[in-house]
Order: sequence, then structure tokens, then C-alpha cells
Amino acid sequence: MKTFDEILSLVGKAVEQLDWSRKPEGLYDPIVYTLRLGGKRLRPALTIMACEMFDGDIRLALKPALGLEVFHNFTLLHDDIMDKADIRRGQSTVHVKWSSNHAVLSGDLMQIYAYMLISEAPATNLKQVLDLFSETAREVCEGQQYDMDFEIRSEVAPEEYLEMIRLKTAVLLGCALKMGALIAGAKMQDANRIYDFGINLGIAFQLKDDLLDVFGNEKTFGKKIGGDILCNKKTFLLIHALKADVRNELDVWLQNADAEPEDKIAAVTSLYNQLGVRKICEDAMLSYYEKAIANLENIGVEAHKKQELRKLAEKLMHRND
Amino acid sequence: MKTFDEILSLVGKAVEQLDWSRKPEGLYDPIVYTLRLGGKRLRPALTIMACEMFDGDIRLALKPALGLEVFHNFTLLHDDIMDKADIRRGQSTVHVKWSSNHAVLSGDLMQIYAYMLISEAPATNLKQVLDLFSETAREVCEGQQYDMDFEIRSEVAPEEYLEMIRLKTAVLLGCALKMGALIAGAKMQDANRIYDFGINLGIAFQLKDDLLDVFGNEKTFGKKIGGDILCNKKTFLLIHALKADVRNELDVWLQNADAEPEDKIAAVTSLYNQLGVRKICEDAMLSYYEKAIANLENIGVEAHKKQELRKLAEKLMHRND
Repeated sequence: MKTFDEILSLVGKAVEQLDWSRKPEGLYDPIVYTLRLGGKRLRPALTIMACEMFDGDIRLALKPALGLEVFHNFTLLHDDIMDKADIRRGQSTVHVKWSSNHAVLSGDLMQIYAYMLISEAPATNLKQVLDLFSETAREVCEGQQYDMDFEIRSEVAPEEYLEMIRLKTAVLLGCALKMGALIAGAKMQDANRIYDFGINLGIAFQLKDDLLDVFGNEKTFGKKIGGDILCNKKTFLLIHALKADVRNELDVWLQNADAEPEDKIAAVTSLYNQLGVRKICEDAMLSYYEKAIANLENIGVEAHKKQELRKLAEKLMHRND
Repeated sequence: MKTFDEILSLVGKAVEQLDWSRKPEGLYDPIVYTLRLGGKRLRPALTIMACEMFDGDIRLALKPALGLEVFHNFTLLHDDIMDKADIRRGQSTVHVKWSSNHAVLSGDLMQIYAYMLISEAPATNLKQVLDLFSETAREVCEGQQYDMDFEIRSEVAPEEYLEMIRLKTAVLLGCALKMGALIAGAKMQDANRIYDFGINLGIAFQLKDDLLDVFGNEKTFGKKIGGDILCNKKTFLLIHALKADVRNELDVWLQNADAEPEDKIAAVTSLYNQLGVRKICEDAMLSYYEKAIANLENIGVEAHKKQELRKLAEKLMHRND
């Protein structure tokens, strides 16, 4: 069994070896730039880990795994246009460095290229893998639209938020794992369990993100604390806080466009503590994490083969960035 | 053998029956709107015609054919963002009626949906059909980038222009035909010949478009004559005119932002006639058309089975809109 770090290194090298030597440069340069910005390479690593866990040949899973990484980076590229984000991983985003047109079109090609890589799945699994990926990609779009819809809605229920992050974030993790399982020839029951593990871990992962943005340590988090608070992002924390009695006090901060950033962050953070929504979010995160671990335990392979995925899940829950 | 009109009607009904009943509405409504705007439905019709020509079962080709229509409409949706076009087929474009964000994301989902439909190709052809489509989709993106690059370049060679329209327009027609042939189980040699027929017809089709925009009849053309002239679009006509001695006279019109539209159209049209570039474009169009007919003739099926495609090619060359 390969360790997670060995798999990351294998995936990292394979991403670098993707061939982008075609023209015109205005189309391909933004793609090379986007993929070189790095990122966790978590999704392709999950595919390879799942494939290994079910004793599959990881060489057969590598290209589809890379397809998921290209797809994930495509979604970030287009999300950055929609969110008008100027910076990604410390660098200018494509629509700033080139233009929105470049970002739209290069993203479109990345999506096509993702399908090209996924189409390299073994012929025996091809239709299954394609259907899984297409349904997932569709759900990711649905999640992004809900996320944008929520920005302009006055009220969002916690259940709606959880469904949004399931679509926007968790399904791609579930898909990555299930794809590896399918290519390894796992039983459908086990492939579905590893999918559920990915879903529950993905939701826990996003709740952890929400928490880190408010309660993280700026040095280890790698970006400014309180970004979500400043832009009134309807995270799990804010949604729960908006349900509480202090609504008026919170509303003042949400509507005060002239507030000093530090004052607003301090005040809203203090309200989150006061209202116990930090605890609500931590409890929810933990509950999804525990569901994920139960899914993993139910999979019909020897315990030692699950070790790396279990360690990774723990690491993601205890991360500081 | 079905006639072209029978096939159009069959395809039109199938497009209407696509199921878009999922949520959120902000994602799906722009897609329904885009597909209801109509259009020629030429690409799926070509797939069905090619499938019939090679005695294939057109029921097996229908979903992949619809995938090409969804893909084509996706490219128009994203092109309209990039070109800042407000009107398409007499109606507001999606980025105007909703927003750019809606147009980006709904387009992304249309591309995924196109792959979903294309993935319904018979298992025996699936990989072949996918590879053909992905390579084509990639080339369409390359063509669009070249088209945008040419806008800001001072000089474009006629060969570069022809390569751009091959990528942006012709390959999708070639792909549509070849896809129908592959699904029908045609020999690879014949599948390639029908692809070439599509490429040559597609280039002739685009040159016809360039000609209609200047020399068409406003009533039958359906849109204003001279649009390309007003925005200095580097069409085959303008590229050839820019190579001629009258460059200075032409440059004055190209650089005069205050010219009365009618004066500019009349003057540039007159220069096109004077320089013989109308004839150059008509000759080139005819030459591609003749190549297309030769490709069709070389295909190893009985002449009467080629009849509908041949009639369609003639119709496209003699159209006024």
C-alpha cells in the first residue's frame, strides 16, 4: 500500500506531465498557469487511494483521477469569475491576469480536457465512470448556483446550506473515491459506501473551513481570518446566528458597510461564541466526520487497507489551513 | 430514407422533450430559454442523415445527435458573453436577460449535459464517439480563441482565417456526420470521407455567411446587412481587401469611428467590388463546395442514399439567410 504522501507525489508529477503544447497560447497559457498554482491534489489522490484499497491497478485509475483534478481547477477558474475573486492561492486569478474572456474559454476547454482524461477509464467501466462523473459535475454546478442564490436571499435554512455544500464540495470527493473503487472492480455496495464516506467527509471538511475562517490561526491558516464575516457570507455559523434572538444586533453589523473590518470581525465572532453557534458548527462537523468513519468501517475489506484513508480523514479534521 | 425535413421535425421534437425539470431554476431556466430560441438544428440532423445513409439504426444516434445540438448552443451562449452580443435570434441573450454569471454557469452545465447525451452512444462505439467529440469540442475552443486573437491583430493571412473557420465552424459539422457514420458501423474510410465532406461544406458555409453579410438581401437575410463591415470584422473579404493597393483608402474607413454607418457600408462594399474580393470569396466558396461534393461522391454507398445530403449541401450554398 502506498502512503498518502507517496500518492500525492505520484499525482503531482502526473499533473505536471499533462501535455498543453497546442496553440493558440491565449487558450492554453491560462490552463498551464491554473494547474501550476498547485492546490491539495486531494481529489486525484482519493481516486488512487480508493483504487488501491480495493486491490485495483492504479495505473488504470491515473488518467481519470487527473481528469477530476482538471475538472476541480476548472470549477475554481469559473467560480473566480463569478465571485469576482482577484486572488487564488496568493496569485492573480486568470480573469485578472488575462481577461474574463480568457477565463471563460480556457475553463471550457479544461472541462473538455477533464472528459478526455476520464474517457481513458478502462472500456469495461467506461460508461459507469462517465455517468458517475457527469452526474457529479452537474451537481457541482447546481451547488454553485445555490451558493450564488443564497447570497441574495434574506433567509437560508441550515438544511439548505448543508445541501448546498453537499453539492458544491462533497459530491466531487465522493465521486473521486467511487471512481477509484469502480475501476478496481469493487462491489457496488462497497463503491456506494466509499461514496458516502466521501460525502460525509466532504461536508465535515466544508464545516471545518467555515470554522477556520473565523476561529483559525492567521499564521497557519494562510489567509486573513474573518473573510466570510466581512462579506456577510451565509456560512453555517451565520445562518444559525441569524435564527437567534440577537438578530437585531447582528443585523446592525451586517448592514453597516462603513464598519472597521477589525471591529466587525471581533463583534460578530463574539456573537458567534455568545450564541453557541461555534459549538453547533463543531458538533455538526463531528457528527458528519463520525458518519464518514462508520461508512469506512462498513466497507468489506481488511482494516489495514483502510488505514491511509482513515489517517487522511483525521488529518483533514485536525488541519489548520 | 427520410427527407431532411422529416429528420428536422424528428430532431426538433426530441429537443423539446429533453428533461430540464431539476432545480435551481437560475441554472436551468437559461438553458430551456436558449434551446427554445430555435436555430437550424443542422448538426443533429446531419448525424441522423449520416446514420441513415450507412443503413444505421437512427434511434441509436438520436441522443448523441442531441448532444451536439446542446453543445452547439452552449458555444453560442458563451460566445455571446465573450462578444458582448445582446441579441441572438431576435431575443435578448442570456447574459443580458439574466446575468453573465448565469450565462457562464448554465453554459457549463450545457456542456456537461452534451456529454451525458453523447455518452448514450452504443457501448461498442462509445470510446470512438467520445474521442471524436472531445477532439472536436477542443478544436471549437481553439477556433474561438483565434477569432478573438484576430480582432486585435493588425494582419491576418487568408490561410489563417480559413484555419480559424475550419476550427470554429467546420469541425462540428464534420463531427456530426462522422458520428452518425460511426454509430451506423460505416467503414473508417467512409466515415473519414463524410467527415471531410462536412469540413469542406462547413468552410463553404462560413464563406457564404461572410458574403451574405455584405451582399445579401436585408429582407431575406433576416438581419442588418453590413454588420461585419461596421465592426471591422476580419472576414475573408476584408482580409483580402487589406492586401490590396487601396489599403490607405480602406484604412480611413476602418479607423473612422464617426462615419455614418450607411456611408461606411456603401464605401467598403464598393471597394470590395472594385478589388474583386467578392469574386475571390465566391470562388473560394465554390471550390470548397466542389471538394465537399467530391468527398460525398467517393463514399462507398449507392448514389440514391447520398441524395438528401447532396440536396442539403446545395440548399446551404444557395440560401439567402
